[in-house]
Amino acid sequence: MLPAGPSNGQRAKLRDVAAAAGVSVTQASRALSGYSDVAEQTRERVIALARQMRYFPSLRARSLVAGSRAVARCAVVTLGFAPAGPDLSAYDVALPGVFARAAAEGMDVRMLTFNETADPAEQLARLVGEDRADAVILLTYLPLTPTHVRPLIDAGLPFVVVNRHFDYSSDADGAAASAISCVTVDWATATRDMLERQVALGHRRLAALFRAGETSTILDLERGWHEGVARCGLDPASAPVLRYSGTAHDPGDSTGADDLDRDVDGRNGYALGKQLLTRGLPESGRAPTTIVGFNDVTAHGVLRAARDGGVPVPERLSVIGFGDQIARYTSPPLCSYNPHWHRAGELATELVGALLRGEIQGPRRIVLPLTFSHRASCGPAPRD
Amino acid sequence: MLPAGPSNGQRAKLRDVAAAAGVSVTQASRALSGYSDVAEQTRERVIALARQMRYFPSLRARSLVAGSRAVARCAVVTLGFAPAGPDLSAYDVALPGVFARAAAEGMDVRMLTFNETADPAEQLARLVGEDRADAVILLTYLPLTPTHVRPLIDAGLPFVVVNRHFDYSSDADGAAASAISCVTVDWATATRDMLERQVALGHRRLAALFRAGETSTILDLERGWHEGVARCGLDPASAPVLRYSGTAHDPGDSTGADDLDRDVDGRNGYALGKQLLTRGLPESGRAPTTIVGFNDVTAHGVLRAARDGGVPVPERLSVIGFGDQIARYTSPPLCSYNPHWHRAGELATELVGALLRGEIQGPRRIVLPLTFSHRASCGPAPRD
Repeated sequence: MLPAGPSNGQRAKLRDVAAAAGVSVTQASRALSGYSDVAEQTRERVIALARQMRYFPSLRARSLVAGSRAVARCAVVTLGFAPAGPDLSAYDVALPGVFARAAAEGMDVRMLTFNETADPAEQLARLVGEDRADAVILLTYLPLTPTHVRPLIDAGLPFVVVNRHFDYSSDADGAAASAISCVTVDWATATRDMLERQVALGHRRLAALFRAGETSTILDLERGWHEGVARCGLDPASAPVLRYSGTAHDPGDSTGADDLDRDVDGRNGYALGKQLLTRGLPESGRAPTTIVGFNDVTAHGVLRAARDGGVPVPERLSVIGFGDQIARYTSPPLCSYNPHWHRAGELATELVGALLRGEIQGPRRIVLPLTFSHRASCGPAPRD
Repeated sequence: MLPAGPSNGQRAKLRDVAAAAGVSVTQASRALSGYSDVAEQTRERVIALARQMRYFPSLRARSLVAGSRAVARCAVVTLGFAPAGPDLSAYDVALPGVFARAAAEGMDVRMLTFNETADPAEQLARLVGEDRADAVILLTYLPLTPTHVRPLIDAGLPFVVVNRHFDYSSDADGAAASAISCVTVDWATATRDMLERQVALGHRRLAALFRAGETSTILDLERGWHEGVARCGLDPASAPVLRYSGTAHDPGDSTGADDLDRDVDGRNGYALGKQLLTRGLPESGRAPTTIVGFNDVTAHGVLRAARDGGVPVPERLSVIGFGDQIARYTSPPLCSYNPHWHRAGELATELVGALLRGEIQGPRRIVLPLTFSHRASCGPAPRD
């Protein structure tokens, strides 16, 4: 229970902290500045209350001394990965979106990378304890549970999760899940839309090549796919989801192109694409006329398998991906759904700013639609 | 002239500021914390000296109050562009490199975007005056002169410029230029290397399609090209550089692929590639057997022009680009030089950290070599 202080999302004033500690404003200020004429016990009590009540003296000191206006410290926390190694990723595009909006929201952005091996909750608890941020934007490639972000909820620190939601959380997590603000991407609607497009073009045998895993992105993609299959009246056996893990690697399926083989999506797109085109769908043994990739790199692997197997795209096979970063450069150019990562970064920043200023009470969820770009990799189903 | 204080790169201590102001340490501390029992005149003098001597009370206050260790504030300043709009760019890869090293260097990274219309020097002067950073990493797509960064030099603020150097600066700027630390990419060696490779494969007619401009990158590329032409004993008329600006757009050269046409590099690569393949080199009228793009998107435009013109790659035409981000996904995959932007970001961060800690005295320049990836877009010159 917080001491009497400002309502959720607002910054405490020094006089609130002083009142809670039962000291004068001057005493509180001197305690927070570390002056030795304040009793150690008093100093500790004032500091503890200041933290709990989210009063940040460093902001005040900075604005007084340096003459600049006080800015909030927004930590962009990346869980389980250093934000992009040398290869590009979705979040490389989301981050510039954050930077683009941070100044307008009166926030300094600082980057914190938590590594994969440590417990996210422990690391977030330390961030809170050390008062390293006034607000947090969270990015991760890992599955995330409400338990992971519990320290942020408990501290009342405004935070927004990008591209993760908690609709699949267990009941035990229900209350925590409902307290989390998110900016998510509507993967399920995109896969449904994709199936409807392809079925309208006459396709009846389709396969999805998705990464295996339990992130909300993967679960959304699969849910959308199964809903689309049902809605279109397809036989589920004619529209399976094939899952690939990040570690499987059959060197026999190598294309000889080293830098493509190193990529788990491209490698699996090629291997599974080749398998589907030569051996057909698992149940019927008939080749699919549409193959959907987890992302454009997966889909590019399918394009290579089709070329190597002499299967013309789009005449005999339609190929579709997600991401729309490299799609225009492949041959043929790929149909792809753009998740608008840059916009997601902007919206997360605006949302966390509104929470910080107390303009929004309680959690909020923003869902971004993906947009489809039609290119040459899709066409009508071939006549059998 | 700075008051007697620490040597370049080191942080002043409170006692230094107090001594310079002729007050006690306690008085100086109270002045900086804004206490009203310090005379206004004294307070102003102490604050002015603290700024000049690079004493940052906010760091001290934060470490005292919040119990965290003091971290330096490293501003990543992007001049003339919001760091990446929705499209990917080189600096999107450099930024994660900065983030990856910042914590190890004891720095908080904050992003500052200066817009294109304002004077960079004015904006940097304000950054210094407002004490918004302890160190600066500078990224820009614009041509940069020593005059632009003068306020950072004058303030003695440690800073590093990424992908710009000042070898082409006028004599008037010479002294300032020699005071600037840079992490640069060895574009000139890469273009020389490229010409030597292609000439060894029998190519004698080559063209470069480079952006027009006066950035050190463009000037390096052109210098390397001309040096390579001389070194290989080529006739300069058989190896011209064709320059394209960011605005020219001949709709007659459109390919009909909307999202490619919007890209100035892809559009010009296509238009100039088509022109070279149909009308030949400007002087001889004979088609080049190698075309080099300013980046991989330019080179991808050339690949499309070759395909549309029925010119097989690499049998009749070799195509090479720079960047190596999309090169593996084109068809055929592009030979490309990788400038290792991620590493450049890491090195800039390590360098600015060393300057900040005073481990390095004076400016330092780090030059990164590009690495070549051979792929299917290059081959021996065709027999005439």
